[in-house]
Amino acid sequence: MSLQELFDQTISGWMDGTGPSSDIVISSRIRLARNIEGLPLPHVLDAERAQEVIEKVERAVDDVNKRGNLGHLKMYLYKDISALERQILVEKHLVSPALGQGCPNCGAAVNKEGTVSILINEEDHLRLQCLQSGLQLEETWELCSALDDGLEEEIEYAFQEKYGYLTACPTNVGTGLRGSVMIHLPGLVMTGQVGRILNTVGQLGLAVRGFYGEGSEAAGNIFQLSNQITLGHEEEKMIENLESVTRQIFEQEQAAREALMSSAKTNMEDRVWRSYGVLTNARIVKSTEALQLLSDIRLGSELGVLPSIGTKTLNELLVIIRPAYLQWLAGSSLETEERDHMRAGIIREKLGKS
Amino acid sequence: MSLQELFDQTISGWMDGTGPSSDIVISSRIRLARNIEGLPLPHVLDAERAQEVIEKVERAVDDVNKRGNLGHLKMYLYKDISALERQILVEKHLVSPALGQGCPNCGAAVNKEGTVSILINEEDHLRLQCLQSGLQLEETWELCSALDDGLEEEIEYAFQEKYGYLTACPTNVGTGLRGSVMIHLPGLVMTGQVGRILNTVGQLGLAVRGFYGEGSEAAGNIFQLSNQITLGHEEEKMIENLESVTRQIFEQEQAAREALMSSAKTNMEDRVWRSYGVLTNARIVKSTEALQLLSDIRLGSELGVLPSIGTKTLNELLVIIRPAYLQWLAGSSLETEERDHMRAGIIREKLGKS
Repeated sequence: MSLQELFDQTISGWMDGTGPSSDIVISSRIRLARNIEGLPLPHVLDAERAQEVIEKVERAVDDVNKRGNLGHLKMYLYKDISALERQILVEKHLVSPALGQGCPNCGAAVNKEGTVSILINEEDHLRLQCLQSGLQLEETWELCSALDDGLEEEIEYAFQEKYGYLTACPTNVGTGLRGSVMIHLPGLVMTGQVGRILNTVGQLGLAVRGFYGEGSEAAGNIFQLSNQITLGHEEEKMIENLESVTRQIFEQEQAAREALMSSAKTNMEDRVWRSYGVLTNARIVKSTEALQLLSDIRLGSELGVLPSIGTKTLNELLVIIRPAYLQWLAGSSLETEERDHMRAGIIREKLGKS
Repeated sequence: MSLQELFDQTISGWMDGTGPSSDIVISSRIRLARNIEGLPLPHVLDAERAQEVIEKVERAVDDVNKRGNLGHLKMYLYKDISALERQILVEKHLVSPALGQGCPNCGAAVNKEGTVSILINEEDHLRLQCLQSGLQLEETWELCSALDDGLEEEIEYAFQEKYGYLTACPTNVGTGLRGSVMIHLPGLVMTGQVGRILNTVGQLGLAVRGFYGEGSEAAGNIFQLSNQITLGHEEEKMIENLESVTRQIFEQEQAAREALMSSAKTNMEDRVWRSYGVLTNARIVKSTEALQLLSDIRLGSELGVLPSIGTKTLNELLVIIRPAYLQWLAGSSLETEERDHMRAGIIREKLGKS
């Protein structure tokens, strides 16, 4: 599988809208931070030792592929691919934005479904990531745990009985686990409850971020909830906690939507139909506006106000309208204005109004 | 013809888009102010004398109807019709807003095409008005002049050799004539030229007003140009002057549109498609927003950016989305929110997207 093939496939597994509660919870993600015993951590790693990491991971991935129970992972070294290709891996949520910015000794192994990836020589030697549709943190954890076990056949992880897995950043020490969900909360935003709720979430040991993780804004009413504490808890407990909080927020979002539909039905209908009208007709659409309008029509479709729009299409649009993906689709680099024009065209096409 | 029948006919003759240059010049209007010899002017007229005016006009109108060359005029006394019905006559541009506000001794005679009306006992005893599609001031003048002659068979007008026709307000003395055109100038508004041009128009002895005459705003980029001076000029000269200035503005509007399409084509396309998207999808539309968006789609249709939308439909919408007309169509009085909702529905329906 070449990157070409990976990118041609605009729908990743996590986008397909088949997971539980995927009307509100877009995806579940588990990430495990791991380092290799006996090698310096990436920020003090020289090129030679970095190469050693890459080779060890390569062998371990080969082993995993041979066993075949986790699909097929293909490895890409960042020095071999373009900045645009790296950015697309970020936009497909396969690698984190930090790594996407380029790093000569970095690499990533990804499966063709876009649901499993291993980041190499970023903040830690390895970061395992599994991404699934809807709210299914346990299943995603099982997948990631199996990958972890598979890699451990070949790699000896840095591990101390007292602390657990050692990581570059102390916030990851212990389980090295970060679970997160992407959740669409237009109802809570519109009713003005989102601030209070996300504040409470913080007090429960969870963090709230935007669509692209740390530092990114919650564009299009999509929030990322994740556990903050990795030390002193069992993995299952952490995941249970995150899942339970997510379920509560899910219910509050549903209640907010019902309240809006009973107290301000015509206004809601007007809002989502207008957003639909703009998305299916505009010739220039900026990224932030697109995310906001897509949030409206996702809500409208789920409330039965608009004709049903597939969750798959909506999730796909979240990714393919991003700057790097647009340029990849165009086959050339594009100025902002050209991207805004192309974005508008793609949205119309995907919504069946080209 | 009852008012019911008149209002059922949502398209008046001036809306049909058949007149010359009717893509930019919506309509041409001629108004003649006349008073009856030997009777006090309306502002000092008692009920008995007002009744005398009404009877004289009634007889004159009967005569005109019998001759039949000006269609059939039907007379309505304001005391016999509701405030809503009076307001619809205003919205159909058959009577002026002042008279629409109610006056116990007032009345109006109108033809069923909605192109000829006589206002009785408003500021003057009689105000004759003829309204035609597009830029055809001379033809409209001929029509109004024929009506004037027809009425004069029965009525003796107050006239002095030195001044001409005597009127209540000195600004109308002389010919009593006011010619005006409704002109749609989105190109000049968008290119920021409209202020300068309309200022120049003022220096040429013309006045600029909004869609509903004196004191009304130029909502939806529709301006009303009219002659200011009624004294000391021949009617034909005045009309020639107004027609000539209108033609020049028409050309400047066309040039502005061409400039926009060559310098900002994508932005123009985006603007008119967005407006089309909102109008064909929104569930709540306020009056001012409707006029602005209708201006955009009229422009878009004329520029060939949008699929062609009939001028007749667009002109009809200008009238039927007004508050009184909406309530008449609904058959009941409506709160603002209900009107905004109904307006949105009617627009979608007329644009073929109900």
